[in-house]
Amino acid sequence: MKVVVPNSNLPRVLIIGGGFGGLAVANALRNKPFQVVLIDRHNYHTFQPLLYQVATGGLEADSIAFPIRKIFNTHDNIVFRVANVTGIDPEGKRVETDLGALTYDYLVLATGSTTNFFGMKDVEEYACGMKTVVESLDLRHLILQNFEDAHQDLDPLERDQLTNFVVVGGGPTGVETAGALAELKRNVLPHDYPELDLRQMEIHLIEAGDRLLAGMSDKSSEEAKDTLERLGVNLMLNTQVTGYDGKTVTTNKSAKGIVAATVIWAAGIKGVVPDGIEDTSIGRGNRLQVDEFNRVKGYEDVFAIGDVASMSTEAYPNGHPQVAPAAMQMGERVGRNIIRLVKGAPLKPFEYFDKGSMATIGRNRAVVDFRKIHMKGWIAWVTWMFVHLLFLIGFRNRAVVFVNWVWSYFTYDKGVRLIIRPYKRKVELDHLDPVATP
Amino acid sequence: MKVVVPNSNLPRVLIIGGGFGGLAVANALRNKPFQVVLIDRHNYHTFQPLLYQVATGGLEADSIAFPIRKIFNTHDNIVFRVANVTGIDPEGKRVETDLGALTYDYLVLATGSTTNFFGMKDVEEYACGMKTVVESLDLRHLILQNFEDAHQDLDPLERDQLTNFVVVGGGPTGVETAGALAELKRNVLPHDYPELDLRQMEIHLIEAGDRLLAGMSDKSSEEAKDTLERLGVNLMLNTQVTGYDGKTVTTNKSAKGIVAATVIWAAGIKGVVPDGIEDTSIGRGNRLQVDEFNRVKGYEDVFAIGDVASMSTEAYPNGHPQVAPAAMQMGERVGRNIIRLVKGAPLKPFEYFDKGSMATIGRNRAVVDFRKIHMKGWIAWVTWMFVHLLFLIGFRNRAVVFVNWVWSYFTYDKGVRLIIRPYKRKVELDHLDPVATP
Repeated sequence: MKVVVPNSNLPRVLIIGGGFGGLAVANALRNKPFQVVLIDRHNYHTFQPLLYQVATGGLEADSIAFPIRKIFNTHDNIVFRVANVTGIDPEGKRVETDLGALTYDYLVLATGSTTNFFGMKDVEEYACGMKTVVESLDLRHLILQNFEDAHQDLDPLERDQLTNFVVVGGGPTGVETAGALAELKRNVLPHDYPELDLRQMEIHLIEAGDRLLAGMSDKSSEEAKDTLERLGVNLMLNTQVTGYDGKTVTTNKSAKGIVAATVIWAAGIKGVVPDGIEDTSIGRGNRLQVDEFNRVKGYEDVFAIGDVASMSTEAYPNGHPQVAPAAMQMGERVGRNIIRLVKGAPLKPFEYFDKGSMATIGRNRAVVDFRKIHMKGWIAWVTWMFVHLLFLIGFRNRAVVFVNWVWSYFTYDKGVRLIIRPYKRKVELDHLDPVATP
Repeated sequence: MKVVVPNSNLPRVLIIGGGFGGLAVANALRNKPFQVVLIDRHNYHTFQPLLYQVATGGLEADSIAFPIRKIFNTHDNIVFRVANVTGIDPEGKRVETDLGALTYDYLVLATGSTTNFFGMKDVEEYACGMKTVVESLDLRHLILQNFEDAHQDLDPLERDQLTNFVVVGGGPTGVETAGALAELKRNVLPHDYPELDLRQMEIHLIEAGDRLLAGMSDKSSEEAKDTLERLGVNLMLNTQVTGYDGKTVTTNKSAKGIVAATVIWAAGIKGVVPDGIEDTSIGRGNRLQVDEFNRVKGYEDVFAIGDVASMSTEAYPNGHPQVAPAAMQMGERVGRNIIRLVKGAPLKPFEYFDKGSMATIGRNRAVVDFRKIHMKGWIAWVTWMFVHLLFLIGFRNRAVVFVNWVWSYFTYDKGVRLIIRPYKRKVELDHLDPVATP
């Protein structure tokens, strides 16, 4: 069985993944003499930096997802398919998908990353990742369902399980999620749930290292720590999670553990490498080792970009940061290099332009590091919002996100508190009567 | 097991259903000497008149759903629970739910209506209703998945199954849905799917009666017919669907039938009556027969309002129209009458104020009937939008819907073309390889 694509005599560039990197490759090859085939398992691009706002009821999922067909729909040389890649045959220059097989002349792996549970099977089973729209919606539904369930006739321990939240990982995602939960606790939940004593609600943030936002400046780490503590988040630095059974998180610091039915795992990611690539090409963090042209080690015509790629350079011996700007820059470089390759021109090595990093911590607070410049407080928060709006794709999405943010700013509200598809807890709590899925 | 609610010595009014009617009852009893318990199976109110825009990618679901807790969160006498009612014991004045039992002093059934398949089991199995947010999202996902699937290696008949759509029912929902599909065909799909020949896409609207919008004026019916035909919708009046196997719709006019993998059933509704109410109280359309005070026949302290209630009057011998204004007016009346009941004052009979009716038919076109006044065209369309924005709950929702409509107006686009949770067809088409759910 073959994936049906239009006949073409042009060389075919097959791109797997419609994230920031994959879209940049396709964009660089727009209206160039190639047949570009872009494959993604979804029909939309996900703006991952805002998934935590979907999970915490601040934004509708539809405003941070953008239909991929709409991006390219006037560009005749770009073919898009929704498909799951099941394997790669680099010898035969073929990719296998659930729609059939497809050959390529050049392959670009822009498959991104998934949550890394570091081999802890119980954590993987019971904790929630937040890397896709569906995971974020499930998490939103679970958070809200917890508070609904907490009205039942429970003993205090069970109620604690429902109203305690543990966020694992002190990077931007963990910090932003803990901040958003703290805002929910302060400004939203007490109005929605007058029958519950929300002073009992605990938000824990666990980080294995000795500071938050390890990739950022010391000033930013300090600011994040101070702000989260002021918001009432219980920080646990130098603490490693050792297990989770759906009810209690254990750590290397406490055998008794923390009671919580909801654990949000933002402690690490690993590259998504399709079957068929040699193990010898895979390095640390399950990332594909690439040369300065993003060619995967051991292959001539297979490129990897973004989170799944690791290019060892002097400044970044373990690969570049797994962030959107790196993926976009690699994608553009690879697109242009493929054009050079066909022309017989020498390839240009990838050069990373560091756009700095930022994280928001609840309302009115953020930290921004750009080279030697450090910003914090309200001005950093406005910068954070502006940059995120800028990188969202599509005017409609920007406008809807903007409406939500303006609304939240003036009302202290988070409007999307909807349980549309109830999420089934994997462990049922002892005395809880689950509400049936409608 | 009991539903836990705060202790109270006040008489308890139990309202089942958080639609337009149920909310109106609760609103009338705000800060009055009652304990009001409102139960819904969802944690949100659904603005049903715009569900068809969710199904056709014009609006995000989150903008037409509103968290019920947010409506009442400052009102201490109103308790809300997400629960499914499993039965009623009018003798014991008790309602059974999946969270346990709850007694009442006064019960208000505001349970609304569900799709009526008129006993056709195969149609119920394979056609799509559009009465809930989840059904509308499933339909959106199916519509888009059809076009993705149509790229596979299929024979022409199978491709027709995927790109043909049958809407059954010529009331406002059917007319609006057919119009929205026609707009998709004209303005959106040809850009998204350049590899498909969308001239082949057929939209059929089947109506058993001899005109569209039977509840409206002849002028409106004519206008709807003309507009839909101009948009390329194939109208079949005086035609009854006799069966559907997931691939072909059969009618009393054609044994061969219409090939279509997607049938949207908007041909009728029936009241949702909880178990435990005597059959003798149930009338035509599964509606509860009520007296002029909305008391259910045979019960003293059980009221029914909205779609599930049928009050026979001179003007409406078979009950009032099953529309939002009727439900809201009944709800307010019942709320006030319960207050009078406790005071020992005589009840006031329900009087219906007919707010007219309207339907939109694609872009720039609508029909509005209000008493002797009839409007059509652009001015009716603007009126339609204005009225719908007005009745949406919440500023954020209004703003998001407004952004979407303005966006669509200027771009001819429908932005929410996302397949977030692929919908599994109940019948697999012969040569189709289903994309695995991620």
